[in-house]
Amino acid sequence: MAQQEQRIGRYALLLALSEENDPIVMDQKNVKSCVGKVGTMDSQKIVAAIETAAKSNGLINGNVYREVHALYHAILEAIQGVTRGHLQLSGILRTVGLRFAVVRGAPYRNKEEGDWIAVALYGTIGAPIKGSEHESAGLGINHI
Amino acid sequence: MAQQEQRIGRYALLLALSEENDPIVMDQKNVKSCVGKVGTMDSQKIVAAIETAAKSNGLINGNVYREVHALYHAILEAIQGVTRGHLQLSGILRTVGLRFAVVRGAPYRNKEEGDWIAVALYGTIGAPIKGSEHESAGLGINHI
Amino acid sequence: MAQQEQRIGRYALLLALSEENDPIVMDQKNVKSCVGKVGTMDSQKIVAAIETAAKSNGLINGNVYREVHALYHAILEAIQGVTRGHLQLSGILRTVGLRFAVVRGAPYRNKEEGDWIAVALYGTIGAPIKGSEHESAGLGINHI
Amino acid sequence: MAQQEQRIGRYALLLALSEENDPIVMDQKNVKSCVGKVGTMDSQKIVAAIETAAKSNGLINGNVYREVHALYHAILEAIQGVTRGHLQLSGILRTVGLRFAVVRGAPYRNKEEGDWIAVALYGTIGAPIKGSEHESAGLGINHI
Amino acid sequence: MAQQEQRIGRYALLLALSEENDPIVMDQKNVKSCVGKVGTMDSQKIVAAIETAAKSNGLINGNVYREVHALYHAILEAIQGVTRGHLQLSGILRTVGLRFAVVRGAPYRNKEEGDWIAVALYGTIGAPIKGSEHESAGLGINHI
Amino acid sequence: MAQQEQRIGRYALLLALSEENDPIVMDQKNVKSCVGKVGTMDSQKIVAAIETAAKSNGLINGNVYREVHALYHAILEAIQGVTRGHLQLSGILRTVGLRFAVVRGAPYRNKEEGDWIAVALYGTIGAPIKGSEHESAGLGINHI
Repeated sequence: MAQQEQRIGRYALLLALSEENDPIVMDQKNVKSCVGKVGTMDSQKIVAAIETAAKSNGLINGNVYREVHALYHAILEAIQGVTRGHLQLSGILRTVGLRFAVVRGAPYRNKEEGDWIAVALYGTIGAPIKGSEHESAGLGINHI
Repeated sequence: MAQQEQRIGRYALLLALSEENDPIVMDQKNVKSCVGKVGTMDSQKIVAAIETAAKSNGLINGNVYREVHALYHAILEAIQGVTRGHLQLSGILRTVGLRFAVVRGAPYRNKEEGDWIAVALYGTIGAPIKGSEHESAGLGINHI
Repeated sequence: MAQQEQRIGRYALLLALSEENDPIVMDQKNVKSCVGKVGTMDSQKIVAAIETAAKSNGLINGNVYREVHALYHAILEAIQGVTRGHLQLSGILRTVGLRFAVVRGAPYRNKEEGDWIAVALYGTIGAPIKGSEHESAGLGINHI
Repeated sequence: MAQQEQRIGRYALLLALSEENDPIVMDQKNVKSCVGKVGTMDSQKIVAAIETAAKSNGLINGNVYREVHALYHAILEAIQGVTRGHLQLSGILRTVGLRFAVVRGAPYRNKEEGDWIAVALYGTIGAPIKGSEHESAGLGINHI
Repeated sequence: MAQQEQRIGRYALLLALSEENDPIVMDQKNVKSCVGKVGTMDSQKIVAAIETAAKSNGLINGNVYREVHALYHAILEAIQGVTRGHLQLSGILRTVGLRFAVVRGAPYRNKEEGDWIAVALYGTIGAPIKGSEHESAGLGINHI
Repeated sequence: MAQQEQRIGRYALLLALSEENDPIVMDQKNVKSCVGKVGTMDSQKIVAAIETAAKSNGLINGNVYREVHALYHAILEAIQGVTRGHLQLSGILRTVGLRFAVVRGAPYRNKEEGDWIAVALYGTIGAPIKGSEHESAGLGINHI
């Protein structure tokens, strides 16, 4: 069985947690990654922002559905971490301000395991009033 | 409205992600924290392990139900990040190996906001076979 | 451990169930409470109606996020009783007509347990056609 | 369309909320009802206790599957109110002490609407430690 | 106890899977059925399309709420098969193209079991881009 | 974008619906498939039965985690169709008798889309009493 060599999920989380004023030192080789931000009351905008970033940074081939499908499920899993079980924001009067990171790499020594993709989210969730919010995070991982 | 000064969720996640071989440098004042590990197919053992650690390290007062209640809901939210929506492990033939961190502090400048508690989980989830697993993480936060 | 002295949840349910034509006799001391009505296909309007009533009746301090956060989660739990697991109404073509009650008090003898808040909902849920509906109820409780 | 004449859900909730020391005066004609108690960490015991009470009190005919099926879904909906979205107790280290009521009647004026069944639950949910618990309630209704 | 004689669910699934270019031979007596198509990003349009078809084809009496209620829950259960646990489509940027079938009949030998209704869905779910989709199906059954 | 040529989900459903006494004529080329049966109150036995059948029939390579992972998520999605949103059986006093089919093939014309896997379930779900059950079905699909 495959043994894990590269922790793409941990790397994605650190990228999402790292900030200009408080950077985290990381050293990760042989992976592709991108980061971005999204603030919204509409969960489909989180999906769209991450898909666009992953495609334009060459992490997935947007013309191959299996790559889009793998990323999509990793995004949904990460959003479930943020919203804790549901997938709704505006429907229950919540807004999020998130930093996201997507990492693609080969986490297992066995080459047959191929590439996997990790999506990490970190930021705040709360009422649509400044300050009425607390931190939230999520991580989704899938084979690609 | 309260403005966030201390990010107890970010600190809890970094504690959960930090490891002997790959430590993360952190600087966080005026918070109480503890870390631990739990490996199980039984989600109630995750709850019990974190509750025990938080009580014995003085993060919550185990004799006051409102503190137990606050921690309990933060744990459930963190587990939902790990299992992505459901709360079951053995029922669907999954096992987890997790590092957890609990942080208690006052994240907001306004003193009336008082203490909040953060529970972070990071590790692996998968079939009960070595190597058949991928990374997973969760974060829960509550007022206490 | 704390022993329960005041059942704020039971009191909130009785307030929600009581009606002009069919009043329920209740005797509850040392609690704050308010009641109201909301009819909608939009679950965020239930959240907003209850938050507004609780603030304007002085049950919570709207300037303190921990009080808003405690109430918010109690509301969500009560809505889940009404919708039985999901949080959607219009998305699945359902409408509700609800009477709500919010009660704040100290349910436990131990003074350290402090205040808790209860949100009760009772009314009808159904298709957006008069008569195509049945009763529904929910109760959420949180420390505050 | 049918207009509601008898509120079997409200009656079931009042039966579940009524207690020897604090009885609620109710007047409800032309319905069958039963009440009982169940304390458990195992959600299937709640199902079994209510089914047994409903059968032995003649509220449903246990030999007709459509009646068993109608009651079963009403019970599940009531449990979701108690556990707020999930159906697990012991899996997440929770125990309940509940009073239940089952009511069967014809809530609508139109005779074609026939009989409906209501299941109400009220009691406490919490950690398996005396006092570490708060109130909880649920209501399920189905045509029979 | 009732023994199953007619499998209305299987028949509904075969109707949903049957197509002009690839018909499935079926022989089912003494049931009423209808089929239709719906393509949408809005889950309430699936509900509305099936309710309309079932009423206009005489499978249910739209003036009797218990029949509407029975069909409604069968539809929701079928949609949960398609969306696998959630009830959202546009909220998470998904679109469906579905063929639906509704079947009403008496599946059990015991006449007291009366009529039951089955709703089957089959088609595709995916991103709102041609080809970025895979198959999906669901089945809901209820007593009526 | 990829266009669908082979409907592996439809084929898997027809295999699950086909029976000795009532066979369905199917013609599907270039796919691998297997069928089996499982009756249980324990959802992890459904997972185990399907994984074992898929491995022993050469549909997936049990030594490659990405193949196990792809199949696992397709199984969970199919079970959610059967249980309609939850993943529990015994916990809520339900038992299932299911016929399952697994199909692996290349559903899209574009060769880059590679292999996908479909898991279909069809059978009965109900109380653990003969006859107190109705039909149920589910379909899960994933890239592999």
